[in-house]
Amino acid sequence: MQFYAEPLSRLIDELRRLPGVGAKTGQRLAFHLLAMAPADVQRLADTMVEARRRITDCSICGNLTEADPCVTCSDPSRDRSCICVVERPEDVIAMERTREYRGVYHVLGAAISPMEGVGPGDIRLAELVNRVKAGGVTEIIVATNPNTEGEVTAVYIANLLRPLGVRVSRIAHGVPVGGDLEYADEVTLARALEGRRVM
Amino acid sequence: MQFYAEPLSRLIDELRRLPGVGAKTGQRLAFHLLAMAPADVQRLADTMVEARRRITDCSICGNLTEADPCVTCSDPSRDRSCICVVERPEDVIAMERTREYRGVYHVLGAAISPMEGVGPGDIRLAELVNRVKAGGVTEIIVATNPNTEGEVTAVYIANLLRPLGVRVSRIAHGVPVGGDLEYADEVTLARALEGRRVM
Repeated sequence: MQFYAEPLSRLIDELRRLPGVGAKTGQRLAFHLLAMAPADVQRLADTMVEARRRITDCSICGNLTEADPCVTCSDPSRDRSCICVVERPEDVIAMERTREYRGVYHVLGAAISPMEGVGPGDIRLAELVNRVKAGGVTEIIVATNPNTEGEVTAVYIANLLRPLGVRVSRIAHGVPVGGDLEYADEVTLARALEGRRVM
Repeated sequence: MQFYAEPLSRLIDELRRLPGVGAKTGQRLAFHLLAMAPADVQRLADTMVEARRRITDCSICGNLTEADPCVTCSDPSRDRSCICVVERPEDVIAMERTREYRGVYHVLGAAISPMEGVGPGDIRLAELVNRVKAGGVTEIIVATNPNTEGEVTAVYIANLLRPLGVRVSRIAHGVPVGGDLEYADEVTLARALEGRRVM
């Protein structure tokens, strides 16, 4: 017995390809879309296609952008001597939200992960080396994720760039602000101790 | 400072109109869409628009359908003397999943809810009365949700249809199969006791 009409079942299948969307959420989203005004569905669909068409990778930093180079890379007030290296465009947003960072970025696209078959040649490392070699860069802040893949990538980058005479730093690991010490895992706590600063 | 490129920010805004999609999920879905192949985004967009265009309400039962009348209403093997009344198309899917029900359906569209300004005239009750008046119907199973609005709607339907000489029944309330008695709320447990059956 087929529960869904064919276009609906195809819609649910398509929606389930999105991250975090399983059978239940796919069905909920599909029924919601079918209850929306046709014009609103059309606008959502157009927005998706248009965003995908208009947004590309910045040829300098690799971040998602409409204009190339991106807003950050072409902003004269940003400090080009400092490059923050992140895994994904989402991480640039997270860094920008701090409103503390005034340098530029380099988006790798992923972290090195032998488990997932991602080697150093598969991420934007050659582009990073070229930017450093082009001169004017004094510090590289490695802000890859604080997990195994991110750490491996950070060490790899440090070894790669140190010979070029640039300072390579890693963002601090420690207890999250607002967090509860009791619930911090031992590795994080050990790193927090190790990275303690004089008050 | 604008964190997102304009087409991306518009995409996130559109996605956030979907149920259960907040700022975080909207961003995650948007970045995922931008990382997809343009052809895949186009296909998802087309599927959405096409489903919305091709799927309408069945003129008999009100369920979502591609052909009118719907598969269930036009299936000669279904028992037309029994109509199961539900609030929404999703509920038909849930009933069909039991593979126990062989009658037909009537989708109200919503439950009566004074809080949300939904009165008896706003849901497909006149259509239900007409179906009963047309004859051949012996039982109406009211399967509206087991919450206040659903109960109010069920009582309203019973009062409306009983004078027409049709049997109106309500699905049983009780402890869910596989559930833990300890965690059943007192109202459910009271209803389960009340509805007890001789073994």
